[in-house]
Formats: sequence, structure tokens, C-alpha cells
Amino acid sequence: MEKFRFLTSGESHGKCLTAIIEGLPANLEIDIDFINFELKRRQQGYGRGGRMQIETDTAEFTSGVRFGKTTGAPVTLVIYNKDYENWQKIMSVNPSDETYEKSFTKYRPGHADYAGSIKYNQKDLRNILERSSARKTAIETAVGAVAKLFLKTFGVECTSKILQIGRAKTIEEMHAEIDNAKQAGDTLGGKFEVVYKNLPVGLGSYVHWDRMLDGRIAQAVMSIPAVKSVSIGDNHAYKMYGSEFHDEIFIDNEKIYRKTNNAGGIEGGMTNGEDLVVKAVMKPIPTLRKPLKTVDARTLEQTEAHFERSDTCAVEACAVVAEARIACVLANEFLLKFGGDSMEDYKNLKL
Amino acid sequence: MEKFRFLTSGESHGKCLTAIIEGLPANLEIDIDFINFELKRRQQGYGRGGRMQIETDTAEFTSGVRFGKTTGAPVTLVIYNKDYENWQKIMSVNPSDETYEKSFTKYRPGHADYAGSIKYNQKDLRNILERSSARKTAIETAVGAVAKLFLKTFGVECTSKILQIGRAKTIEEMHAEIDNAKQAGDTLGGKFEVVYKNLPVGLGSYVHWDRMLDGRIAQAVMSIPAVKSVSIGDNHAYKMYGSEFHDEIFIDNEKIYRKTNNAGGIEGGMTNGEDLVVKAVMKPIPTLRKPLKTVDARTLEQTEAHFERSDTCAVEACAVVAEARIACVLANEFLLKFGGDSMEDYKNLKL
Amino acid sequence: MEKFRFLTSGESHGKCLTAIIEGLPANLEIDIDFINFELKRRQQGYGRGGRMQIETDTAEFTSGVRFGKTTGAPVTLVIYNKDYENWQKIMSVNPSDETYEKSFTKYRPGHADYAGSIKYNQKDLRNILERSSARKTAIETAVGAVAKLFLKTFGVECTSKILQIGRAKTIEEMHAEIDNAKQAGDTLGGKFEVVYKNLPVGLGSYVHWDRMLDGRIAQAVMSIPAVKSVSIGDNHAYKMYGSEFHDEIFIDNEKIYRKTNNAGGIEGGMTNGEDLVVKAVMKPIPTLRKPLKTVDARTLEQTEAHFERSDTCAVEACAVVAEARIACVLANEFLLKFGGDSMEDYKNLKL
Amino acid sequence: MEKFRFLTSGESHGKCLTAIIEGLPANLEIDIDFINFELKRRQQGYGRGGRMQIETDTAEFTSGVRFGKTTGAPVTLVIYNKDYENWQKIMSVNPSDETYEKSFTKYRPGHADYAGSIKYNQKDLRNILERSSARKTAIETAVGAVAKLFLKTFGVECTSKILQIGRAKTIEEMHAEIDNAKQAGDTLGGKFEVVYKNLPVGLGSYVHWDRMLDGRIAQAVMSIPAVKSVSIGDNHAYKMYGSEFHDEIFIDNEKIYRKTNNAGGIEGGMTNGEDLVVKAVMKPIPTLRKPLKTVDARTLEQTEAHFERSDTCAVEACAVVAEARIACVLANEFLLKFGGDSMEDYKNLKL
Repeated sequence: MEKFRFLTSGESHGKCLTAIIEGLPANLEIDIDFINFELKRRQQGYGRGGRMQIETDTAEFTSGVRFGKTTGAPVTLVIYNKDYENWQKIMSVNPSDETYEKSFTKYRPGHADYAGSIKYNQKDLRNILERSSARKTAIETAVGAVAKLFLKTFGVECTSKILQIGRAKTIEEMHAEIDNAKQAGDTLGGKFEVVYKNLPVGLGSYVHWDRMLDGRIAQAVMSIPAVKSVSIGDNHAYKMYGSEFHDEIFIDNEKIYRKTNNAGGIEGGMTNGEDLVVKAVMKPIPTLRKPLKTVDARTLEQTEAHFERSDTCAVEACAVVAEARIACVLANEFLLKFGGDSMEDYKNLKL
Repeated sequence: MEKFRFLTSGESHGKCLTAIIEGLPANLEIDIDFINFELKRRQQGYGRGGRMQIETDTAEFTSGVRFGKTTGAPVTLVIYNKDYENWQKIMSVNPSDETYEKSFTKYRPGHADYAGSIKYNQKDLRNILERSSARKTAIETAVGAVAKLFLKTFGVECTSKILQIGRAKTIEEMHAEIDNAKQAGDTLGGKFEVVYKNLPVGLGSYVHWDRMLDGRIAQAVMSIPAVKSVSIGDNHAYKMYGSEFHDEIFIDNEKIYRKTNNAGGIEGGMTNGEDLVVKAVMKPIPTLRKPLKTVDARTLEQTEAHFERSDTCAVEACAVVAEARIACVLANEFLLKFGGDSMEDYKNLKL
Repeated sequence: MEKFRFLTSGESHGKCLTAIIEGLPANLEIDIDFINFELKRRQQGYGRGGRMQIETDTAEFTSGVRFGKTTGAPVTLVIYNKDYENWQKIMSVNPSDETYEKSFTKYRPGHADYAGSIKYNQKDLRNILERSSARKTAIETAVGAVAKLFLKTFGVECTSKILQIGRAKTIEEMHAEIDNAKQAGDTLGGKFEVVYKNLPVGLGSYVHWDRMLDGRIAQAVMSIPAVKSVSIGDNHAYKMYGSEFHDEIFIDNEKIYRKTNNAGGIEGGMTNGEDLVVKAVMKPIPTLRKPLKTVDARTLEQTEAHFERSDTCAVEACAVVAEARIACVLANEFLLKFGGDSMEDYKNLKL
Repeated sequence: MEKFRFLTSGESHGKCLTAIIEGLPANLEIDIDFINFELKRRQQGYGRGGRMQIETDTAEFTSGVRFGKTTGAPVTLVIYNKDYENWQKIMSVNPSDETYEKSFTKYRPGHADYAGSIKYNQKDLRNILERSSARKTAIETAVGAVAKLFLKTFGVECTSKILQIGRAKTIEEMHAEIDNAKQAGDTLGGKFEVVYKNLPVGLGSYVHWDRMLDGRIAQAVMSIPAVKSVSIGDNHAYKMYGSEFHDEIFIDNEKIYRKTNNAGGIEGGMTNGEDLVVKAVMKPIPTLRKPLKTVDARTLEQTEAHFERSDTCAVEACAVVAEARIACVLANEFLLKFGGDSMEDYKNLKL
């Protein structure tokens, strides 16, 4: 039931990240600067570590776009890993490059290492961590940026903000929290909010569980590495009375409006014309300088988790990725609702 | 990417609810009493209204099961709406039964009425509410009960509990909260937790966003009517340090174990061998005796929402439905991971 | 990538056949007489056996339709098996009804019996044959009839004809062929053609293999029991020169036209505005009075296949089913191309 | 319902063709020489034109493979178009490179040009032909080669042969046919057969139409550009009696066998242990030196189709692509039936 469908691939230190998007209408103008701007937004934020300086991600289109517009054919996006030249041997496709000396064998708590190595029967945990790394969200951000370009043509707008980092709720406090954590070799998560404006009424549907828009958004956001909670609308739904929570409906001059938006823009699994408000919780980054106790998969002995260069806090990046992931869900809903093979098909659309 | 796939149908006051499940292995023993027991659990709980006395749901199998076992063919489940005889005219398929006098035109805030009537171009809101009603969770519970029977053969166990109703966190307080709300003509939501035990390591995957198990669970639970928030593991991820949050890994006698389970049993989008812990927030039921302000779709005048017989609080039911919905996700993951056309194919499986 | 999606279920001698269709727009008028007419067409044709007299199939809607129109909710269709009362014990869901005396153990060549019993680990071949039976095409015909009703609103029309039965190419010869086969206790297959007219240009797409309309039609038709070959357009493509085969393009008064239609209405996996012409070959029915050599699954001894009441030739029925299956594919393509939640959304559509 | 899923992209004269495969088990050995050998096979065959000399396709893995083995992560395959350097301006992503002088406006009969330009609202037909070109079958062949590597581990083997070219049925006649057509500036199609050996019993299923293996194969093969007909097993099903056609079942020393294979290895939509035999018809290549009548999309005047360097006959290539496409279908069926996250999971499998 996907019209905007895509696959992504690529390892954290491999040659490149790739995405193929299938289902975009033709004649969508591709603003490459916007896409690179989104990639840059993902790399910023207070609390990011050194790698963000190495990689200034930029996307290259290798198919589906000609003279600045989509053609209807599948669109391929590639982001090259700038650090790859130093990793060519370690990440080599070639069997003859195999070497055990650099293999990685200490499970990192909070990561995919343990379950992944059992599932895929891997002794070198690098074969797990290279793909489970949040690095892959770079290409997801690029795909989402394309989805945003599509949505923009309908006037849809998107913003996000950080609500809380650790126990801090204001920017100054947040920065102090992050500074403290960094000094302590520790990490922090937080809460953020994504808002989409100007969505038409009736994206998604109540008629079948897998068409509920809130469910689709929840999947998209929860599948971002480190996200542990997703909410639509007000977080206090559980402790409010029905008479307080529900957004009463008013009319003025034949125009329906609300005074509140506790529902976060979704009723019955559909957009209801109010702002779509999605909140999420990101857990603290599981790679920390302050070592966590763990087990060595090879020796089966108790040890401490290895530290690879990492960030102290990446909630801002996570919010950018969430924007992108939600953009993909919404683009798909537009395509399901309105059809369309080329952008001109929407010319007479009244939202 | 679904092996356990199903469609459900049916209206709140129509003849019946139906589900077709495609993808079950053959020779799964169908314990109809268990399925009906689950249906009964969904109908109970403190705060339920009158309809629960009318409908004692029972499921009938009309295909795919012979002599108590699945055959591999699609399984059809039917739950008849006992109240249907009183609604035959109103819910008639027949054009000649059409009547406008009973049509329903006041949007109920918090429901699908407004967005649904625009999306599907319906003047009689009954055409929206009949399907958007939570009544459909009865058949989803039955489908989930079949999924649970499958999971049980692998030793998987499930429990759920209510964590909070309004501001109350103990049973006595919860009941008092509900009593108060009922008296005031108001409604209440709450928080609940579902726990699955004995899952094998490695269900789900980090390799692609749509294979992340936490994302799939989030979709399944968020798509239950009135659920507004879904979390995996500890709710305080946002305010804990990495060194506090992450579940360190220990070994004893070559057996890996953890002392904590803040991750809720999922790392890297996969089960990690610990209990799967899912929490969710249900908003207060949007149908209340105490009327909410709204608009009449026909007259476009300000009015008050209509009250149909309803519940004061349905969080217990919601938890049962969440168990069921998660069971479907997990059953699908078992089938993807282990394959299998008949139950005998799992004979030598070591989990 | 399906908007018109459906699941079907039911056994040949079970209580009923069921289908749930999800994805239909609201306000589609349901002409139940047309659906029953299509069901009747499937049951007719020269060469059909006794069962066709027992079962005069009629469809009942148990959800998704109110006052003669779809509501946007999933549509459920049920066809009761009239013969069921005589089969209740044999087809019982109840474990206590299990009996081995009537179990069926002789593999019928040409049927699913052998592979199915191994796949699903069944000793009683009835558990295979009840679902593999062509009986299930009755509900597929009903689903296709709903799809046809949708297509009709766009002016799409459908016909089919029999091209050959055995070696006969005229009606009189065909009937004689069938009479001869019947007398000999033998069976016959044949060739037929389905034509769809008035399709808009551009259903399907060349951009990705799974969007090619010819591929989707080929799957739909080949998946009808007993169909062994599917062709689009002229059957002699393999022996014609490019200069003979390809349909040259002409223009008259700014209107594009062709003088030939060897392509069968599809170029580049898309409708090209000409009639869609699909041809298929049905193998002879594998249940024959004249016994085929086979093996008894229980004794592992050489024996002869059992004969259950059957038809001599069912090519006419097969053509009706092919019409229906193609209708489903086309309805899905319309929905993908034009979107739409209610029939009114197509009001301004110019095809 | 796909476990082996993939998207492909790329234009005929773009930078590269790309595929992402998601769902491969870990630890599958990737024999890059085999993949390149398959790519070479696709480029050969009597009747191919000049481009085949320019492009000697080789595949590069840019993700999902490390030290010669899959890791479970998505696998990316890239085939660079060697001719690209001469096409960079014409195929540029950059809006500033747009130029109308080289645009292509004459619909080529038999191609996607006409329907594609309407569907995607393109004035320069190059935007259609670049993706609709059979060039994309190169990357499909590479994907299929990976699928074949997987299948080989189970002992599955594949062959194909040409049955007829035009009216010729022996190699000498075929070559003469092709020579004649070439001299006349014409093109030829033909018939070919693909055979898969050593498949286990029970791939596919009769239980639901979209699980029928013959249907899935028919889609895969019919979606190859220029294929107009697909058959399973003997082509004369339509004119044989049931008693002649059906493959009787014999037993010898507790081993089931057949003396004939008219069914082509599929009964009831499942593999039955016999060789899988798929036949297909390819139409003559629609690009011919001898010009076809057509219309200019810009002037709307009658004209003649443009000739781009092309082949006289590509049936051998088409057979190689069909092998590949069927390999993908079969690999998916293995994964659905047997599950498996790493190759070691199949260690104890008895087929």
C-alpha cells in the first residue's frame, strides 16, 4: 500500500549510502541545495562529536532526475562517506582482505551488537554495527528531504523543537546538561516535537488498522535508532478528563475551527485540519566514554564496552530525522489520496 | 513483507465482524475457548457501559480450520453483532431502506466524524462512526488470539496491567476516579503496559527501517482507537544518563544476562532476550454524557455532540487489544524468521 | 503497492466463501444483480457437470455497503455453499468430529494433492483439495464484479470469447469435441480471449518491473487454477518481423490512432489507448472419469485416481474468472493513478 | 509478502544502474565472477548490435558485502554505463544544462514513448525511453545472479535455450533468419525456454491467488521488456485430452516419480518436484532501421520513427534475463518457506 516506496543501504564506514525512491511523480523540481541543507541540519546540534566535522554530507542524484526535475523513473540518491578512504581495507568487499586482528568482539549495551550477532551469525561485531549505526539516518534524511520538496508544493510546512534534554527544559540548561555529561564521559537523550502545518483533512483512514496515519507515523518515528517513545498531541491524555481533552468544534462564517489541539491534528487515524503534532523520546546515546560493563563475544569473559568516537547528545539530529521520516509517510498519503503521475496532475487540486 | 497477513471488516451495528487471516501454518491447534476467553477479557474492566452486557462476543470459524486444526488455507473468523436484529433497517445494504430521518449529523469531537465525512463525502455521519467505532477491536482481538495460540507453541507468554487511570495509580484510586467521572458524565483514559516473555533473540532487524520491531509494534499499538502514545521500555529514557539507562551485559556460566531492562527487551530494533515491555497511553473516550460543543454538519450551526450509550473508561479493554495487536506483529516475525508451512516444521527448533 | 486489496477464503464444501475488499472509494453504487449475474455466468458453459445445478451462487454483503452504496469501509462478500448441509460433519471445525474413514488418500495427477500434502503435512488429502479446488474462483468472480462496477463508472467495458476447445475452433465443433470427451470420460481445455475497451492511456508503468501492467495481468490470469499460458496481443509475435508486428501510429485531426493492435493495447507495460487483449490457455480439467494412474499416500501403492463429480470442460467459466481477475488489476491501477476516496472525486476526470 | 525484495534504478545513458536488495541472509558467499559472467551472457547472442561492444558490464558492490560474504544488511549493486562520458550533458541532473535542440519527439511504435509521454507529461521523449529501455535488464540480471548464488547453495540449477526465432527452429536456420532480417533493416523475436532443476516440493501455494508460484513467475517474465507470452510446461495444453496431458504418478521403492512433465513442474501453484519449465515469447525489437510510420509529438505531423543503434534480435539475452527474474521469484519462495537469517540456518535442511 505504498506509492512512495524506497529502500536504503550503506554502512557507516563503507563507500557510500544509497537510496532508491520509486513512485515520485514526474516534473517535481529538485532543489539540491535544500536537500544538502537538510543533511547539514542533521549534522548539527549542541553535543555532536568529531565525526560531524569530517563528513559534510552532500547528496548526488544518479538516476530519475534530468535537468532539475524528476522524470517519473526511480530516483537514486548517493551520499559518499568521506572517511571511506581510511577504511577501504577494513570494509573491503574482497575476501582476500579479510583479517581478524581488527575484529570487534565486545557487545556494546544499548546497541544491536548482541542480538544482531546472534541473528546474523557474525563473529566480528563490526558486521553488525556498521549497518545498525545511526549513520544510515543521513540517507533517510535525504529521502525525507525529497518528500518535503513534494509536500512543499502543496504548501505543507514543517518545524521541530527540542522540549527537554535530561532534566533541562531551556536552552541554557540543556547546554549545561550536555557540557556536564560530556565532561563526565556520559551521554544524554531528550524529548522533541515535530509539527507539520497545512495538511489537508483526511490523510490516513480509520477503515483498516494499517491505514491509520498515527500508526504509520509511530512506526516511522519509532524506527529511528534510539527513539523509545512516540506520542501524537498532548502528552497528558492519560490524566485528563474527556471533557478537558477533546478539542471542541466551532464554526465561524461557515469555517470549522478549534480552540485547542490536544489531539495533535489526528482524529480517527486521519488528519483533521489542525497542526500535526508528534512528540518523541530519544534515549541517551549508548556509546559512552565512561565504560559500560559487558561481555566479550570471543572469550565469553566479562569486560568493558569499547568506545568509538561518538556524540554526547544527538537529540537535535534525531528531530531532523523524525521530520524526514514523517515527510515520507505524508508524501505517501498524498500520493494514495490524490494519485498523480506528474506534478501537473495536481494543478486543479483544492486542499 | 507480511507472512501473517489479515484483513478485518465490519460495522459496529452491522450483521457481523469478519477477519480473514492468510499465512498461518497448517496443524496449529485452535483452542476456541481461549479465543472466546480473550474476547470476554476485552469486554470487561471497571468502567464499561451497557453494551458489554448485550454482546458476549464469540468467534466462529468459517474456513481454514478442520477437526480443530488449521489446514494452511486462509482462516475466516466471524463475530456476529447480537444487537443487529434491532438495527437491520438502519444498517441495511438495500437502497430501498434508505431514510434520512435517522441520519446523524453532529460531529463528535475526538472521533473520526469530521475528517471522515469530508474524506468519504458522507452526509450521514453514521457511515463514518459505524466503522471508526472501537467495536472493530473485537475482531482484532480474535485475530490476535489466534496469533497468541501460535506463539504459545514456542512458550511465549503475555501479560498486561493498568499503570494509571487519570491521576490514580492504585486499583482503589482508579475505581474511585472512574466512579467520579461516571457520575460527572465524563470519561477517563490511562496508561497500561503489555509484557511478552520468552521471545527468542533476534526478532525484527536493524537492517532496514521497516524491519525494526519497535517500529512495527508502535504502529500496531498506535493504530488502536484512542491510543495516543507508545513507548518501549522505561518511560524515563529522556532524563537518564547513558550510564544509568543502558542495560549492562553480564555472563554467568556461559549464559548472558542483564540486571536491568530499561530497553524494554529491544536493542537495534530486535528482541534481545529480555522481556518485551510496551507501554501506551489511551486518551479519554470521546463519547461523553456531558456534552462537548460542536457543529451540525447539515445546518452548519453550533450545537452539542450527541451521546450514544458508551463507557466511562476502557483502558483495560485497550490493554487486551494491545496484547492482541502485538501478538500479530510477533507471529509475523516468527514466520519471517523461521519460515514453516506446518507446525511440525518447528519440531527441531531451538529458541 | 495495492490500493484495491483483498483476501479470499473458503473451502469447496465448507460453510461459505468469503472475501474482504479494502480500498474501494465511498459512494460506489453496488448493483447486486450484476454481481449475481456474473456469478451465474461463471457457472454456465457447455461441458459443466452436476454441481453447477446444485449451487446457484449469490453474493451477500455483510459490511462496507449501506443503502446500496459503499461507505469506504472494507466490503465483505459471502457466498454460501448450498451443499454444505450434507458436508457439515466431514468439514467440521470441531475436533470431536474427526474421522479417518472418509479420508482421501489417492493423489490426483494435475492437482495440488501431492505437493500440497507434503507442504502442509496433511494425511487426508481433503485438507488440500477443499481449498485448491476451483470453487474458490466463485468468490474471486464476485470480487471482480465489484471491480467491474467501479470500472464501468469510467466507461470501461469487457468481453470475452472462446477461441479453441481441443482442436475445435467453431462453436459446433467445440460442442462436438466436448460431447466426445464426455462420452470417453475424458476432459478438455482450450484457449480464450478477454478484451477490455475504453481504458485510459497510461495505466501501469515501465519505470519498475513490478509496475508493468502486462506483468500484473499475467500474474492475475496465470494464478487461475488450470491456466498454463497467458499472452498479451497477437499470438504470433515470435514469428513476425518487427516491421509487420509493431502497430504504426497515425494521426487524423489531431487524434492519434492505429490501424492494427498486435501489441494488445500494451506498450512499455502501459495501456496505450487501444483495446487490451489478453489470451490464455486452460489445461484440461484434471479430474476425469477415465482414471489416471497414481499412488495412494497411505499405502504407498500404485492405484488409480479417484473421481469426484466434475466437469468435462470449463473454459467458458475460466474466461469469466479471467475477466474478473483482470478487473481487479485494472481497478487497482485506476486507484493508483487517480487516487480518490469517494466516487465524487472523479467528477472532473477527463480520461 | 516479499522477503527477497529489491528496487532497481538507472537510465540507459545515465551514470549508472543501481539495485538495492533487502532480505538476503548473512554469510552468503558472493562470487563476483559469476555475476559478471551472467552480465556477459546477457550481452551476447547472435543478432546483437554495436552497443554490446561498448559496454562490458561489471557489477560493483557498494554495501552489504564484506570480505566476500553478505552481512545481512541491504546489498547495493552498481553497474556503470561506460558510454556515460559522452552523454553527461544530455543526461545532466543540472537544470542549467537543459537544451531543447536534442530533444526527441517522434513516438516509436512498440515502445513506451507514446503512453509514457502522456502519463508523465513529458515533451522530450528521451525522458521516457531512457528508463523504458531494455538497458535496465542489466541490473536485473545482476540481482538475479545474486539470487542464483543463493539458490545454488541448495543445489538448484538453471538452463535456458532458444526454441524458435521467427520461423526458424534450428541454430543454422535461426542465424540465417537473423542475417536476413539484419540485411532488410528489420528485427525478429522468438520463443525460449527456461528450466530450473532440483527445486524442493512445495514452493508457492494454492491457498491464495497471489501465492501461486506460476502467477508470480508469469509476472516476473512478462514484465521483461518485449515479452508478450508466458507458459508453464507443455504449450499444447489447450488441444490435449485430460488423459493425455496430466502427468501420472508412479512409485518405485517408496519414491514418487513421473514419466512425463506436461505440467512443467507446477501443480496447484506449487513446485511438484519435477523440473520447472517456463516458456516465453519475445516480440521483435521495436527499434528498426526500416522506418515505421509514426507521429511527431511536437508538430503533430505524420512522420517516420527515428532509429537509434540497436539489435536485430535479442532473444538470447531475453532468456538470460528470464532466468534471472525467475531466480528472484524462487529465492523469495525459499526465504518464505524456510526463513533463515544466515546461511548456517539451512545447515540441517533436508530438501
